[in-house]
Amino acid sequence: MSGNTFGTLFRLTTFGESHGVGLGGVVDGCPPGLAVSEEAIQRELDRRKPGQGGPAATARKESDTVRLLSGVFEGLTTGTPIGFVIMNEDQRSRDYSAIKDVFRPGHADLGFEAKFGLRDYRGGGRSSGRETVSRVAGGAVARAFLHSLGIVVRAATIELGGIPAQARDFDGAQDRPFFSADPEAVDAWTERVQAVKAQGDTLGGVVELRASGVPAGLGEPVFDKLDARLACALMGVGAVKGVEVGAGFASARATGSANNDPITPQGFLSNNAGGILGGMSSGQEIVVRAAVKPIPSIALPQRTVSRDGEARSITIGGRHDICAIPRIVPVLGAMAALVLADFVLLQRRLGR
Amino acid sequence: MSGNTFGTLFRLTTFGESHGVGLGGVVDGCPPGLAVSEEAIQRELDRRKPGQGGPAATARKESDTVRLLSGVFEGLTTGTPIGFVIMNEDQRSRDYSAIKDVFRPGHADLGFEAKFGLRDYRGGGRSSGRETVSRVAGGAVARAFLHSLGIVVRAATIELGGIPAQARDFDGAQDRPFFSADPEAVDAWTERVQAVKAQGDTLGGVVELRASGVPAGLGEPVFDKLDARLACALMGVGAVKGVEVGAGFASARATGSANNDPITPQGFLSNNAGGILGGMSSGQEIVVRAAVKPIPSIALPQRTVSRDGEARSITIGGRHDICAIPRIVPVLGAMAALVLADFVLLQRRLGR
Amino acid sequence: MSGNTFGTLFRLTTFGESHGVGLGGVVDGCPPGLAVSEEAIQRELDRRKPGQGGPAATARKESDTVRLLSGVFEGLTTGTPIGFVIMNEDQRSRDYSAIKDVFRPGHADLGFEAKFGLRDYRGGGRSSGRETVSRVAGGAVARAFLHSLGIVVRAATIELGGIPAQARDFDGAQDRPFFSADPEAVDAWTERVQAVKAQGDTLGGVVELRASGVPAGLGEPVFDKLDARLACALMGVGAVKGVEVGAGFASARATGSANNDPITPQGFLSNNAGGILGGMSSGQEIVVRAAVKPIPSIALPQRTVSRDGEARSITIGGRHDICAIPRIVPVLGAMAALVLADFVLLQRRLGR
Amino acid sequence: MSGNTFGTLFRLTTFGESHGVGLGGVVDGCPPGLAVSEEAIQRELDRRKPGQGGPAATARKESDTVRLLSGVFEGLTTGTPIGFVIMNEDQRSRDYSAIKDVFRPGHADLGFEAKFGLRDYRGGGRSSGRETVSRVAGGAVARAFLHSLGIVVRAATIELGGIPAQARDFDGAQDRPFFSADPEAVDAWTERVQAVKAQGDTLGGVVELRASGVPAGLGEPVFDKLDARLACALMGVGAVKGVEVGAGFASARATGSANNDPITPQGFLSNNAGGILGGMSSGQEIVVRAAVKPIPSIALPQRTVSRDGEARSITIGGRHDICAIPRIVPVLGAMAALVLADFVLLQRRLGR
Repeated sequence: MSGNTFGTLFRLTTFGESHGVGLGGVVDGCPPGLAVSEEAIQRELDRRKPGQGGPAATARKESDTVRLLSGVFEGLTTGTPIGFVIMNEDQRSRDYSAIKDVFRPGHADLGFEAKFGLRDYRGGGRSSGRETVSRVAGGAVARAFLHSLGIVVRAATIELGGIPAQARDFDGAQDRPFFSADPEAVDAWTERVQAVKAQGDTLGGVVELRASGVPAGLGEPVFDKLDARLACALMGVGAVKGVEVGAGFASARATGSANNDPITPQGFLSNNAGGILGGMSSGQEIVVRAAVKPIPSIALPQRTVSRDGEARSITIGGRHDICAIPRIVPVLGAMAALVLADFVLLQRRLGR
Repeated sequence: MSGNTFGTLFRLTTFGESHGVGLGGVVDGCPPGLAVSEEAIQRELDRRKPGQGGPAATARKESDTVRLLSGVFEGLTTGTPIGFVIMNEDQRSRDYSAIKDVFRPGHADLGFEAKFGLRDYRGGGRSSGRETVSRVAGGAVARAFLHSLGIVVRAATIELGGIPAQARDFDGAQDRPFFSADPEAVDAWTERVQAVKAQGDTLGGVVELRASGVPAGLGEPVFDKLDARLACALMGVGAVKGVEVGAGFASARATGSANNDPITPQGFLSNNAGGILGGMSSGQEIVVRAAVKPIPSIALPQRTVSRDGEARSITIGGRHDICAIPRIVPVLGAMAALVLADFVLLQRRLGR
Repeated sequence: MSGNTFGTLFRLTTFGESHGVGLGGVVDGCPPGLAVSEEAIQRELDRRKPGQGGPAATARKESDTVRLLSGVFEGLTTGTPIGFVIMNEDQRSRDYSAIKDVFRPGHADLGFEAKFGLRDYRGGGRSSGRETVSRVAGGAVARAFLHSLGIVVRAATIELGGIPAQARDFDGAQDRPFFSADPEAVDAWTERVQAVKAQGDTLGGVVELRASGVPAGLGEPVFDKLDARLACALMGVGAVKGVEVGAGFASARATGSANNDPITPQGFLSNNAGGILGGMSSGQEIVVRAAVKPIPSIALPQRTVSRDGEARSITIGGRHDICAIPRIVPVLGAMAALVLADFVLLQRRLGR
Repeated sequence: MSGNTFGTLFRLTTFGESHGVGLGGVVDGCPPGLAVSEEAIQRELDRRKPGQGGPAATARKESDTVRLLSGVFEGLTTGTPIGFVIMNEDQRSRDYSAIKDVFRPGHADLGFEAKFGLRDYRGGGRSSGRETVSRVAGGAVARAFLHSLGIVVRAATIELGGIPAQARDFDGAQDRPFFSADPEAVDAWTERVQAVKAQGDTLGGVVELRASGVPAGLGEPVFDKLDARLACALMGVGAVKGVEVGAGFASARATGSANNDPITPQGFLSNNAGGILGGMSSGQEIVVRAAVKPIPSIALPQRTVSRDGEARSITIGGRHDICAIPRIVPVLGAMAALVLADFVLLQRRLGR
C-alpha cells in the first residue's frame, strides 16, 4: 500500500500537498450516532494552525478552514465515510529555482526523487508538515469517539532545545505556550528559541502523550501490540526520531525488581510500563514520548548536491518554523487518538 | 485484524503457544526462484535457541527443528506460500497452580485475561518469548531475499545492564557472546549478569540494528514511513520499550545545523538521520536501536493480585532467562529484515 | 473494514451521500509520471451523468463537475494520493416524510437501519446510485494507467428487458444509446423501456465487459483470483445480482471436451474460459458479464412496513431511472479497470 | 497481497501443494471460548475426502488427517491463531514428463508459468483442488463460530451434467450422493456421470448455498457488500465460472414489480433478492448459486502447446475426478461460512 491510509477499522485516508489546490481526507469506520461538527474539528485544527505558538512559528497564513462533505446527518455520524477538505489559500507565487534542483539536507527531497523520479518541489509537496492538517482533522473525529467512552488523550511538550520541563501538568498545557507541561519552563524555552533563531538555526524537543480512561486489554499480543502501533503512529510523523513507552530507554538500565510495577488490590504502585504490558493496555494511564528533531530548514549555509550530483551550498530562507514544537503537539495527539479508536473497535470483535 | 500477520506484500503469519503442540507460520509473497532450505532457516533458529548465549539463558531444552511444508520445489521458492512448523518437545509437565490464577508483574497476564477472558497460562502461552521462533524462521526467508539484492541486516548488543559497548563491530558480533558489538564489553557484561542472577534479579540492554545495501527511496512519505514500520516491528517484540533512529533522542537536543547531515558529491558527511529522511531511505546505512527491558520473571518476591483481586506475593522460579539479550537479538534482526523485504516489494509497484 | 476502500496497491477510497454536500474520493497508489487531468476524468463522468441515455434516465440534473485537489503536478501524477471532489448541486428540497419511516421494497433501507440504527434517508444516502460517481472518477485514473500499458476495458449492454443483443460491437457501443453492443437492438429496447415506463414499472438487463491487452499471469492462484476480484468488483455495484466469466453458467452444462479451449501455436481456438484460467489471465481477451436487476423504485403501489413494523402501501414517484442501464455501464467498466490496475501493480512485485 | 489470506477480522491463511510435504493454515481472529476440536474439523474434511462421493471421484487415497497445533486450550479457543496441518501421504512417485513441459488446456499451467516463471508441476501444485482441504478446515472453525450464534450454512447440488434437481431438500442433501438437493435426481446424475466417464469426458454442475439465521444488517453498503464478498469467495474456488444471488440472472429479465419482494408485518412474501438488499442481509435466508465447469483433465486427446510453443496433443489419464461435484460442495460451504463469520465480527465494531 502507498501509506496514505492509517488504521484497520477506524481508518483515516489523507491527500494533499503543501502548495496544491487543497488537502483533506476520509474517516471511515466511525460508528454512527456520534456528535461531530465542523466546529469541533476546527477547534483542533486551530491548535496546529500556522501563526500560532509564538516565536517558534512560521509566517505563512492559512485559515485552515475545514469543510465536511459527508458522513454527518442532522449533527450525527451515520456510519458512512466522513469526507473533509481544507483548501489551500496562501499559495504565494514564489521563485523555487533555488530548491527545485537541489536536495535540501535533512529533508525528504532525495528519497522522494529516488522513489518517484519526480516531485512537487513547492514547499515540500506531500512531504511538507502541512500534510498533518488532515491528520489533525481525522484525529478530531477519533477524539470525539474516544470522548464518548471516557478516553482522553493529551499531549504536551516536556523538553525543548535541551531544556527539560520539571512538572507534568497536562491539563494546563493545552492553553500554554509551546503546549508546555510546565509553566516554569516557558520563559527559558522562549529565550532559547529567540537566541537560536537569531543565529539562523533551529531546535528540537520531546513531546509526551498521556491517555487516560483506557480499559485493560486493548492491543494485540504479537505483531499489533498497542505500543507497536503507537510507535508506528508517532514515528510516522515527520521529524520524530525516537519513541519510548513508560520508562523507555531508562528501563534498559534497570533491574527487573526495580522496573516491574507491583500490583495491589488498590492498583499498580508505579507505571514504568507506561500502561502497556505484553502489547496490551493494563488499565493504567498510557504514557508515550516522542523525540522531535530540529527543523532541517536553517538560514545558515549548508553543503549539499544538485540533482546532477554537483556540489552546492544552500541557505534556506522562507516562512519556516524554528521548531516543530508546538505545532507537532496536536498532530502527535491526533495520531495517538487514531490508534486508540482503532483498537477500541478491534476489541469489540471479541464481543467482550 | 488480530495481529498475527506482519507485512503487506512480503507477509509473515504466525501461530503457536509456548506449551502447545507446536509453532509455525506462513511466509506469503516471497518471490519465486530464490534458494531457500530448511538448513538456512535452521541456522537462524539456532542463533536464538534456548540454551545458547551463556549465563543469561534459560535451562529449557528445545531442538527448535524447523520443517518446511510447502512453497519450495527443487530447492527454489515457487512464489506460493511457504508453510513451516517447529514442534514443541520439552513441554515439561509442571504445576501451574502458582501462576494460573495470579497476574505476574511485568507480564501480559492481566491484559490477556481482560482481553480474552481466558488464557493458556502455561509458560505465557501466546505471549511467551517462545512465539518469536516463528519470527526468526520467517525472517530467515526475508534475509535470503534481501541477500539476493545485496542488502544485509545485522543486529548487535551495544549496552547491557547499563554498561555500554564502545566499539561497533557488527561483523564480529554475530559469533560473539551476547552478540556484543564490542569484544571488550563481554567480560564486564558476564560479571554483571552473574551478579544479578545471584541476587535473583534480571537485566535489560540496548540492541542496535544496521542495514547496508539499502537503495534510496524505500518507505512511503506519510503514514508508512520506513522508520515508522521499523519502529512498529521492533516495538512489537516483547520487552522492547523504546526505539530510536540515527541520533534518535539525542537529536531532540541538537540544533538543526548540528543535526543535519551535509551532502557532498562523495556522499553524506555524517549519519544522524540513521539513513532515513522523510520516511524514505537515503542510501546511507540504516541505523536503529531498541531498548530492551529486564526480564519480568524474577526470583525475588513481588506484590501482585489474584484473578479475584486479592493481594498475593509471588516468587517466580522456573527455567527463565536473566536477560532477553542475547536471544532477542536475532529476533530484532528478523523483524527488520521482514520490514525491508516488504518495502522492496512495495517499491517495485512503481516500476522503477 | 467499512468497505469504502477498494484495491490493494491501486486503491480507491470514496465518500459521499446522494443529498449531502458533496462526493469524492482518493486514488492512492497510482504510479508517477502519468498524464491525468480533470478533463479526462470529466469525460468518463459525463458518460454516467443524470440526464444522459434517453428514455431510461432520471430527471435529476447534476453537472457532476470533478475537481482535482492533489496528486497531479504540471499535468503528471506524482505518485502521491489523488484527491477529488464532485459537489452536489441539485439537492432539491423535498418532502421525505413518505419514505423517512418506511422501508422501500428492493432497497437497502431495511439493512441500513438494522446496521447503523439511523440513516440519511434523503435519496438513499450512501446507498444511492449517486455514490458511483466516485467510482467512475477513480476508474478514469485506472483507465489512464492501463491505457499507458495497452490495456483497454470496454463495457456494453448485451440484453435489456429480456431482449438480447445479437452483435458484439464494443467499439461502436461507446457512443450508442444504452451503450448497446448491437445497433439493431436499440429500437426494440427503446420501445420496451417506453412501454414499461408507461406502466409505472422498471427493467433490468445484462452488461458484458471485455478487457484486451491483458498480459498472461495477472491474478493470484488461490483466494485472490482475477475472476474472484472481478466478481467482487461487479457484484459490489448496486443492482448487480449475478456475475459470470466466459461461458459462465453455460459451462456448467457442457462437457470438458466441449468447454476446454484448445491451444495452438497460433493461440487459443475458443474462449469459453473468458481469458481466465486458474484465477490468472491467459493472455486472451477477458470476458465477464453482470446481471442487473430492475430499478426497485416503481410507480406502482407496493406492500411494505414502517420502521415500527406496521403494514404500509408505498408508491414511489420522483426523479428515478427506469433502468440502471445505461448509467451502470461506465460504472461496471470503472470497477473492472480498478481491478486490473491493481493486479498490474501486484504483479510487479515479482520483478517479472 | 499474494492472495493466500482470506477475510478481514476472521481470517484464514493457507499453504500447501498437491504433492508437497503437507498443507495447512492459520485461522486468526476466532473469538475465545468456542468449543473446537480436531474431531469437528475432521468431520468436515471427511466430506470432501478423495474416494468419497461415488462414481465421480478420484482414485487418490488420502486420509486427510488434520492436526491442531495451537489456539485451542482445554477444548476451547483462546483467541490466538489456530494453526493446523494436513500432511500429504499418497505422493505416489510418478512420471511427470508428459505434463512437465506442456500446458494442459483448461488448467492454470499457462498462467502459473507466465506469473512465476517456474512451477511445481506435480499434480497442479498450488493450483490443485487439493489446496481446498485447508479451506474446509478453516471453514469448519467458522461454522463452529456461526453455529454458536444460530447461523447455519448449507450447500447442495441442484444441477449436474445439465440435469436440474427439482426439490430443494438441504437437510437431506448432506448425507446424499452428490450432496443432491433432490433424492429423485441421484439416479439420473449417476447414469450421466457413468456415461460421460466411459467416453473419457467430464461434467459440471450448479451448487446452491443457503444460510439461515443471518441477522439483518451484515455486509457493507459500498464495495464490501455481502453479495460482493460471497461472489469473491465462491468465484475464488477453482472451476467456478459464475455466481448469482437470489433470482440472479433471471432478475435481469423481470420487471421491478415482479422482482421486488413485498414486505409485510409477517415478513417478506418472496425472496428474489436472495436475502441481500443493498449489499446487506435483510434477515431472510441467504441464497447464492455457483456454476461449476467440467473438470478440464479429460482422457480424450486435446490440442495444446509445449512451454516452447510447439504444437502437442495431450491425453490426461491419472487419478482424476469426473466432476468437481460433489467434492466442491463442502468447499463452497466453507467459503460462505468464512464470509459470514467475518461479517459478524465486522458488525460488532458498531457496538450494535
